[in-house]
Amino acid sequence: MTVQGTPSDIDPKGGRPVIPTRGARRPLGLREVTLTGGFWATRQQTNASATLDHCEQWMERLGWLANFDRVADTATGPGRPGWCFSDSEVYKLIEALAWEYGRSGDPSHDRAVRRLTARVARAQDADGYLNTCYGHTGQQPRYSDLESGHELYCTGHLLQAAVARLRTVGADALVDVARRAADHVCATFGPDANPGICGHPEIELGLAEFGRALGESRYVDQARLFVERRGHRTLKDIPLGRAYFQDDVPVRKADTWRGHAVRALYLSAAAVDVAVEHDDRDLLAAIERQWTNAVSRRTYLTGGMGSRHQDEGFGEDWELPPDRAYCETCAGVASIMVSWRLHLATGQVRYADLMERTFFNVIATSPSEDGRAFFYANPLHQRTAGTDADDAEVSPRAEGGSRAAWFDVSCCPTNVARTLATWHTYLASAGERDLTVLQYAGGRITAELGDGRTVELAVETAYPDDGLVTVRVVRAPDGPMALRLRVPAWARGAVLDEGGHRRSADPGLAVVDRELVSGEEIRLHIPVPPRHTWPDPRVDAVRGCVAVERGPLVYCAESLDLPDGTGLDDLTVDATTQPVEDHGRVHVRAFTRLRPGPGPAWPYGPVPAPSTPDGERSVELTLVPYHQWAERARSAMRVWLPAGRPEDS
Amino acid sequence: MTVQGTPSDIDPKGGRPVIPTRGARRPLGLREVTLTGGFWATRQQTNASATLDHCEQWMERLGWLANFDRVADTATGPGRPGWCFSDSEVYKLIEALAWEYGRSGDPSHDRAVRRLTARVARAQDADGYLNTCYGHTGQQPRYSDLESGHELYCTGHLLQAAVARLRTVGADALVDVARRAADHVCATFGPDANPGICGHPEIELGLAEFGRALGESRYVDQARLFVERRGHRTLKDIPLGRAYFQDDVPVRKADTWRGHAVRALYLSAAAVDVAVEHDDRDLLAAIERQWTNAVSRRTYLTGGMGSRHQDEGFGEDWELPPDRAYCETCAGVASIMVSWRLHLATGQVRYADLMERTFFNVIATSPSEDGRAFFYANPLHQRTAGTDADDAEVSPRAEGGSRAAWFDVSCCPTNVARTLATWHTYLASAGERDLTVLQYAGGRITAELGDGRTVELAVETAYPDDGLVTVRVVRAPDGPMALRLRVPAWARGAVLDEGGHRRSADPGLAVVDRELVSGEEIRLHIPVPPRHTWPDPRVDAVRGCVAVERGPLVYCAESLDLPDGTGLDDLTVDATTQPVEDHGRVHVRAFTRLRPGPGPAWPYGPVPAPSTPDGERSVELTLVPYHQWAERARSAMRVWLPAGRPEDS
Repeated sequence: MTVQGTPSDIDPKGGRPVIPTRGARRPLGLREVTLTGGFWATRQQTNASATLDHCEQWMERLGWLANFDRVADTATGPGRPGWCFSDSEVYKLIEALAWEYGRSGDPSHDRAVRRLTARVARAQDADGYLNTCYGHTGQQPRYSDLESGHELYCTGHLLQAAVARLRTVGADALVDVARRAADHVCATFGPDANPGICGHPEIELGLAEFGRALGESRYVDQARLFVERRGHRTLKDIPLGRAYFQDDVPVRKADTWRGHAVRALYLSAAAVDVAVEHDDRDLLAAIERQWTNAVSRRTYLTGGMGSRHQDEGFGEDWELPPDRAYCETCAGVASIMVSWRLHLATGQVRYADLMERTFFNVIATSPSEDGRAFFYANPLHQRTAGTDADDAEVSPRAEGGSRAAWFDVSCCPTNVARTLATWHTYLASAGERDLTVLQYAGGRITAELGDGRTVELAVETAYPDDGLVTVRVVRAPDGPMALRLRVPAWARGAVLDEGGHRRSADPGLAVVDRELVSGEEIRLHIPVPPRHTWPDPRVDAVRGCVAVERGPLVYCAESLDLPDGTGLDDLTVDATTQPVEDHGRVHVRAFTRLRPGPGPAWPYGPVPAPSTPDGERSVELTLVPYHQWAERARSAMRVWLPAGRPEDS
Repeated sequence: MTVQGTPSDIDPKGGRPVIPTRGARRPLGLREVTLTGGFWATRQQTNASATLDHCEQWMERLGWLANFDRVADTATGPGRPGWCFSDSEVYKLIEALAWEYGRSGDPSHDRAVRRLTARVARAQDADGYLNTCYGHTGQQPRYSDLESGHELYCTGHLLQAAVARLRTVGADALVDVARRAADHVCATFGPDANPGICGHPEIELGLAEFGRALGESRYVDQARLFVERRGHRTLKDIPLGRAYFQDDVPVRKADTWRGHAVRALYLSAAAVDVAVEHDDRDLLAAIERQWTNAVSRRTYLTGGMGSRHQDEGFGEDWELPPDRAYCETCAGVASIMVSWRLHLATGQVRYADLMERTFFNVIATSPSEDGRAFFYANPLHQRTAGTDADDAEVSPRAEGGSRAAWFDVSCCPTNVARTLATWHTYLASAGERDLTVLQYAGGRITAELGDGRTVELAVETAYPDDGLVTVRVVRAPDGPMALRLRVPAWARGAVLDEGGHRRSADPGLAVVDRELVSGEEIRLHIPVPPRHTWPDPRVDAVRGCVAVERGPLVYCAESLDLPDGTGLDDLTVDATTQPVEDHGRVHVRAFTRLRPGPGPAWPYGPVPAPSTPDGERSVELTLVPYHQWAERARSAMRVWLPAGRPEDS
């Protein structure tokens, strides 16, 4: 029996991906925040109008949807299209569609969910098992390859999709399917059953949230069991080592993130869920510690994570090559999932700082402006212009350089889609008597505080192009409350202006704690001039280089903006002069001392660089926001620019 | 029918791996040069007494040898041990044993060749096909996976082994087997037959040299056909792209090396062979061009090649990360194969310069002092000490850090073995009326010049520890001849001393062109003080760093030489003071400005490095030759050291 309501019947606040039972902060719902325009509203709109449909069409075309039909029609056998984890893409798409329907109420997205759910449901086995790659005629047996089979991983995504449905329309057919699948997982992998874990964490996330959404603690308990089992070397060793799937060290013992980045981050997000539900402070502290260590030593300027192509993984401390940065889009999504949960659990704003960086420089970078092509890897240095991707072809490669319409392993497009559909739920969080605005975008917030009072705010801003954020109190609650505005960690000279009363605002929180007055305006002005950013001296790969940032945006140089005969390899930035902004672009003075041409026969010699002084040419270098790179045309690109002083200075 | 002689019956000069029909230089044979002691003699001895037996024992233990028995006994089926290319290890071992027997005459190595040959021969199919992984009961069909099946690759190594046998003992059973295998390849892949090529070049090398050794031009022609077929995109595309196996661009059109390094280099070596045999100057020029471009932009200070783990491949120009350097030992072997052929074809000494660098810093680095453990990858920076390898276990990983007794993919040990067994044949080359000494080691040279005269020299030197090379003319030929001594490209202030007549010798060749006198001594003194070496400014990954070299040796810092509480990450070398040598080690002044401890929460900020000035500590840093690293104990290591000036200077 399925019960289905309209979004507002189920939860007038609107659903949201994460609702912990306890914690320092309450997340806002899909309908507590509405974006009215600007950077993220545009992307949400493109996601709704282009990306969701794009994903469904590709999965239909490639037969990933028909895989469900083949199981239902007992027509399985050799030649199944797609990787063993292709079911998960369907589930992530359903999740994105469900959130988007919850956000906008556009019935076309509801219809798409129903259309896809019907096909998925038909493929479920009588006992609840649901996977199109295993366990049927001509297929490997169920759970015969926990290391790389991805069965539980797929089920985890099914459960996350069901959460989206449950929290937006209530218990529909998808929730029924998910419940039976979850029960099957619990029966198969419960405390007295198969002691295995999945090579790719994700089931833990799905079970924990599905359990929270249904109020079924046994699902959360199963998630906890999976989290605790990992790290005890029960998965088989592989050439990349057990660290690849975090089965090397128990979650609560580990000090940093390692191995496959998406795996490490999904696992950590689930560990926070489990820790919060069980009030397990040791486990929570472990994830905070891992976050701290990895963010300070294993994270790119963009917020991107994953230094290695070989295992799509974290490297070692300080191993952050810009050219071979993997920075998988999905790792950005997963990093946001961890940081958000840690913010909700602890209330700390440093997590929102990293989320902002990752939103603007990883999530926003992946999709093309039209929402129909994506970066999978997000390097900070592209040595040669990528090849133009063929929009009609599946890209076999996860290299940077050009956005591709679809990938052989196409996890990123649907991950971007579900993130964009819920972006506004990360904009603010509520406490007992405060509202904290964490991200800045033009919009309306109608939020319930922990004490039951409601505050209604209108935010006006051209952020990140401009750092002025005006918060108008549309409807003030009775009595004092704290309105807290995040001052980003990168901000210098921010000023809070309450009706002409101005005071400086250091990074952290700018707090107005008093009775608010309906109609009043509170302004936070965050200066966003372009600025130089230097790496820690231990980040070997960018020693001697400087980057340019502006507000939350990392900038980059693209070869297509260079004068003829100049290459990005030959330029040195004059770091003694300040970069200048002009209509969103940034100009910097640069020079070259290198003779164009082949260079020395052997690139190592007795004289320090520059090795071939040959007079100096001055060049004006134009930088664009990193998220825009390769948008105009394919191009070489670099974020980190060699820094020096011209001869005459 | 097999005919077998003793080594000296077959060729009084002794065999050698490469004998081109034409070219600027003639290679010397195994018996024209004898090492009497020093760096390479020690390694040849360890190779003969330990490594060869070590390799045979491992292949027996793992069943790679028994694979031949199973084919012979029609007992093939599931569970065949080893990768599909494991046969090639057996062939490389036979090759190494054959050369070693040719060098030393030790009958135990001849017995080993016969023992192994007998098992190999039994596995050959009636039509000449020979492979233990394909084409028999329970196996995939022959040549059903040209992209990754490695069948022709294995056959290529069989032919190289047969060349070693043919040129040391004559046409024995192995040569018979090889001839039938080669005939089968020609019949299967000839001009009017299967137009395929192998995903891993090597058959080209084997066919070309086997053809030269037998005087059978059809084998050389088949090699040429394979070389010319490549680059026309006939192999299937793979996620790493067709550049991985150099099937992206025809050999004669390509401008640089790309894709899998060993593949690229084996192919290039074979292309030189084919070009020389067919007097194909365009093809020869193509390989010279590729060498020039890759050596100037895609090669490590050690001579190592291969910047990426993901595809064991070359990266792009200037992509030379020291920490993720792959620098596979086999790529070092293959690079030497290319350079040697180019030297023989063109007479240029720059090829010998690169060979010296690669010999001392790649080939000598791989094996442990006892010859029973090996590096597969040879990074220039190891961030954390490796884990101690278990000598009884197969290493599943090709990471640096610790030498392993054997690898899951164990191509490197046997490649080192065959190279060491023939090392002395690369020491010099002969011209019409000259002898050119290319590498320096104590030994005896008895060489025939192109005009038929013989010169006999004794070389005394403690090279590379000391740069004095004394060449005593044991027996001078009648009339004038040119004795040419290579002055390495890195040498500064070298002096040639002919009986007290001293003159400076610039890098290139120091030439004595006159009638030599038996008993006279000619001395080349090459100063080998430790020196600073700086990278081209376009090698991004080591910007701002300096390395220390001494003679042909690259040096490195190991963490085990640091005082407690100091890490390799925190040190800056004072590049204003000269490094000092002491008993083969080098001392440099270094300092740290970094506060030990966790460092900043976010490793990027508004202030240039050093970001945490906190007073300065002075540290004496001891460097050891890179080839010795991880020999005393596991250790973090770096070749490139951040360079700066201390505050007080």
